[in-house]
Amino acid sequence: MRIIAADSGSSILGPDFEPTCVVCTVAVLVEEPYRAPSAMLAEAHFCPAEKSYDVLVREIELAGRLLESHRADVVHFDASLGRARLDQLDPDDIARLWPRAPEEALRALSEVASRASRLASRTGVPVVAMGKESVPIRIAELCCGAFGFLSAVREAVEEGREILLGLPIRCSLCVSGRTVIARSLTPAEHDLIGLAEDEQSITGKVIFKEMPNPTLRGFRMVYIRPSF
Amino acid sequence: MRIIAADSGSSILGPDFEPTCVVCTVAVLVEEPYRAPSAMLAEAHFCPAEKSYDVLVREIELAGRLLESHRADVVHFDASLGRARLDQLDPDDIARLWPRAPEEALRALSEVASRASRLASRTGVPVVAMGKESVPIRIAELCCGAFGFLSAVREAVEEGREILLGLPIRCSLCVSGRTVIARSLTPAEHDLIGLAEDEQSITGKVIFKEMPNPTLRGFRMVYIRPSF
Amino acid sequence: MRIIAADSGSSILGPDFEPTCVVCTVAVLVEEPYRAPSAMLAEAHFCPAEKSYDVLVREIELAGRLLESHRADVVHFDASLGRARLDQLDPDDIARLWPRAPEEALRALSEVASRASRLASRTGVPVVAMGKESVPIRIAELCCGAFGFLSAVREAVEEGREILLGLPIRCSLCVSGRTVIARSLTPAEHDLIGLAEDEQSITGKVIFKEMPNPTLRGFRMVYIRPSF
Repeated sequence: MRIIAADSGSSILGPDFEPTCVVCTVAVLVEEPYRAPSAMLAEAHFCPAEKSYDVLVREIELAGRLLESHRADVVHFDASLGRARLDQLDPDDIARLWPRAPEEALRALSEVASRASRLASRTGVPVVAMGKESVPIRIAELCCGAFGFLSAVREAVEEGREILLGLPIRCSLCVSGRTVIARSLTPAEHDLIGLAEDEQSITGKVIFKEMPNPTLRGFRMVYIRPSF
Repeated sequence: MRIIAADSGSSILGPDFEPTCVVCTVAVLVEEPYRAPSAMLAEAHFCPAEKSYDVLVREIELAGRLLESHRADVVHFDASLGRARLDQLDPDDIARLWPRAPEEALRALSEVASRASRLASRTGVPVVAMGKESVPIRIAELCCGAFGFLSAVREAVEEGREILLGLPIRCSLCVSGRTVIARSLTPAEHDLIGLAEDEQSITGKVIFKEMPNPTLRGFRMVYIRPSF
Repeated sequence: MRIIAADSGSSILGPDFEPTCVVCTVAVLVEEPYRAPSAMLAEAHFCPAEKSYDVLVREIELAGRLLESHRADVVHFDASLGRARLDQLDPDDIARLWPRAPEEALRALSEVASRASRLASRTGVPVVAMGKESVPIRIAELCCGAFGFLSAVREAVEEGREILLGLPIRCSLCVSGRTVIARSLTPAEHDLIGLAEDEQSITGKVIFKEMPNPTLRGFRMVYIRPSF
C-alpha cells in the first residue's frame, strides 16, 4: 500500500523549556516495508505556539501537494476521530466526534475537511483521520525532527545565536554525512526513521548537543550553537 | 512460584490490515525466573474476529489441561477484573466488576468462571483474573506469536497462498534452527520470550518478512509466502 | 538549570510479591545534561506500605536539607498537581487540584506545602509539583533503586535472611566496583541513571539475582541472599 501522511513538529524552547513555536510541517510518502519516507515535502514556518491549530491546514495542503507528484492509495491525517473519512465529514460531524474540542481546533479541522473533500473528489484518494495509530504519520513526525533540526541550525547560523530545539516525542537525532537521521525511541519502532538532506552542509557550522528535556519525560532537546 | 497462564493471539490480516481471525490459544507453565515457558500447550483455531470472546473458554480449558500434567500454585487468567478470584465469581459479580461489558463477553466470562470454579475445587489451585499485569500471561501471548507464526506457515504451505500475519503487541520473531522465538519489545521485558517448536522444519518452506503494521503503531506483521 | 528533586521507592516484597514497605527516600541535585545526580542525600526508613503518604514529608525535608548545601534554581516535587507552585498552595487549593485524594494524602500534602512555603521564603527557590513529567524526579527514583538495593543488602547481611526487593518501575541494577548503578528501561531514558556508593563493599557479602516481578509487568525485583 502507498500511504501519504503529514505531521508538524519540533519546537523552539524558551529558557524554561516551554515551547514558543512549532518549527515545521512535513508530508511523506511511505511504502512497504513502512520504515522510512520514499518521498517528502517539508516546510519551515516557526508557527507561534498559541496558533498551533493553524498547522493542521498546512498539513492537508502539503499532503495534497505531495499527492500531485506521487500516486497513493490513502492519505493518513493526524486527527484522532476514530478513523473517520475526513473527506466525508461536515463541521457538525467533527463536533460530534470530538465533543470537547477547542473552538479554534473545530474551525481548523472544518477547513481541513473541506480541503480533504476537494482533494478526494479530484484524485479519488480517501483521507482518513488516523491519529496516533498511523506509522506513516509517525514517520512524518520523525521527519519533523530531522528537518526541524536543519531549520533551527539555519536560524542559529543566520542569527548568530544559540537555539534550544525540542524534538518530537521519543525521537533522537544523528548526522551522517549530509543526512540528518531521526530515529524513533518508541518500543517496537526501532526500525522507523525520519530523514532530512543537509544539501549545503550547514550542520558543519554548528556545535550541537542532545539531552533529555528535564521538564518533560520522554522528550529530548538539542542545544545548537554557531561554531564560529 | 509455579504459575499457569493462558492467552490467545496472532491474527490473520486482510488487505486493509484489519484482523479477520484470531489464530491460536496457548497455555504455559512459568517458573522462576519468570522469563520463558517451562511447559506449554497450544491450539490453532483461526477463530473469526467477530466471535473473539469464544477464545476465553478455550483459554480456561487449555489452562485446565496443562494443570492435569503439571503442578502449579496459581492460574493467571487474562481478564481485567481487579485481581478477583475468578473461581469464586458468579455472573452478577462479573457484571458488577465490568459494568460496560458487551453481552457476549459477560456470557463467555460466566462460562469461564463456572469452569474455573470446578477446576479450583478439583485441584485446589485458585484462578486469578490478573489481566495485563501478569508476566506469565504476557509469555503466553508471546507464545501465541511464535505458535501463530507456525500455524500460519502451515496454512500458507498447504493452501499455496500468501498470508499476512498480525503479531501480538510489541512482539518480534526470529527463527533459530527448529525453534521459533518471539521476543517482547515492551520496555523492561527485554528478557521475556515465547517459543514454538518447528518439528517438521516447515519454516524452511516459506519466505517471510516482518515489518510494522502501518495502521496500528506498536504492532508488527509478517508476510508469509510459499517458496516453491 | 540546577534542579533539586526528591522521590521515594524500592519496596520489600512479601512471598506473594506484594509490597510490605517502602525502603528509602532520596533527594538529588541534577544539572545539565540532566542524566545523573551531581549530588544526593539518601535515607533508608523501611516505611510500612499502609503509611506510604508519610514519605511525602520526608521528601520535602530531604530536598530542603540538600538545598542547604547546594544552590538550585527550582525544586521538583513528585505530586501531580498540574505544575502548581506547591509553596503557594493552601489545603483548599490542594483539595481542589486533587478532588478524589484520600484523607491521608491531603493531610500529608498540606504539611508538605507548609514546609515548601517556609523553604521558598527562606531560600527564594520555588517548589513545583511536577509529578511524573520531571526527569530529575525520575533520577531520584532511580537512585532509590540503587540506594534501596544497598539498604536491603545490609538488612539481609545483618539479619542473615533472604530478602526480595521490588525495584522502581522500569529500572534495572548493576554493580560496578563500589558503585551500584540503576539504569532506566523507559523508552528515551537510555542515558538516565541513578547511583549509590557501596562504601563498605557490602554487596560482596550477598548473592543477588534480578528478574521480572511476575505479578506486575514493567517492574523488576531482586532476590538477595547472604553468601556466607
